[in-house]
Amino acid sequence: MNDCIFCKIAQKEIPAAVLYEDEDVLVFMDIGPIVKGHLLVISKKHYDPVTETPDDLLAKLHITAKRMAQTQLNALGADGVNIMQNNGKASGQEVPHIHIHVIPRYKDDGHHWNWNAKKYDNFEEMTDLAEKLRQYL
Amino acid sequence: MNDCIFCKIAQKEIPAAVLYEDEDVLVFMDIGPIVKGHLLVISKKHYDPVTETPDDLLAKLHITAKRMAQTQLNALGADGVNIMQNNGKASGQEVPHIHIHVIPRYKDDGHHWNWNAKKYDNFEEMTDLAEKLRQYL
Repeated sequence: MNDCIFCKIAQKEIPAAVLYEDEDVLVFMDIGPIVKGHLLVISKKHYDPVTETPDDLLAKLHITAKRMAQTQLNALGADGVNIMQNNGKASGQEVPHIHIHVIPRYKDDGHHWNWNAKKYDNFEEMTDLAEKLRQYL
Repeated sequence: MNDCIFCKIAQKEIPAAVLYEDEDVLVFMDIGPIVKGHLLVISKKHYDPVTETPDDLLAKLHITAKRMAQTQLNALGADGVNIMQNNGKASGQEVPHIHIHVIPRYKDDGHHWNWNAKKYDNFEEMTDLAEKLRQYL
């Protein structure tokens, strides 16, 4: 895609601090890290969102993300890792090109996700919604 | 694991609103949804964290998560989807058994991740950190 910033990074038209690449995948430092060491795992070819991304490529992206998580644990002494892949503006996605955030986490890093868990009104509301979803599997 | 709540759900010792299962994977409704329709994709066998999860199983979990994202888009008319997999207490993970959150998102759902992006002090700080990570690949 001509106007896609991640395509331009994949094509080396825009510089990035690249950690790893192969024919399908590129890994580089997010310049706006949630926690320093935050990585992005992207497909070199343009796909978006996840539902348009081929299964074998998606698998490769996530196996690469796993390897990057291990690298953050080993290299940085991270206590944990968030792996996040957002789809659509409503989800918070900013660049519409598939990418996986791999974020090193520390006990004292000061970051807190806004994990605002809601409740279903009752058990039936939840099972009715499950049934609705099941019909579209 | 005897004391693992997700193992108990996988073994049907604890009830859950199950959407999908096969020999390796189980999908059920999160009872504390960020947004209603929030699903969990888990491995039936106990693994934790992602770095201890076999590649082929991890691939299968994420291909299932992709399918669940498509189901949320189709069944619920969601505008987007967050796919998130947390590792370690420092990351916000609550149940130490590999699970992928698949969260339907709507333009007006009122949820905002605390996406508190930081900055590197300078370009060198970022490239030095990239080099440190690269040595542990």
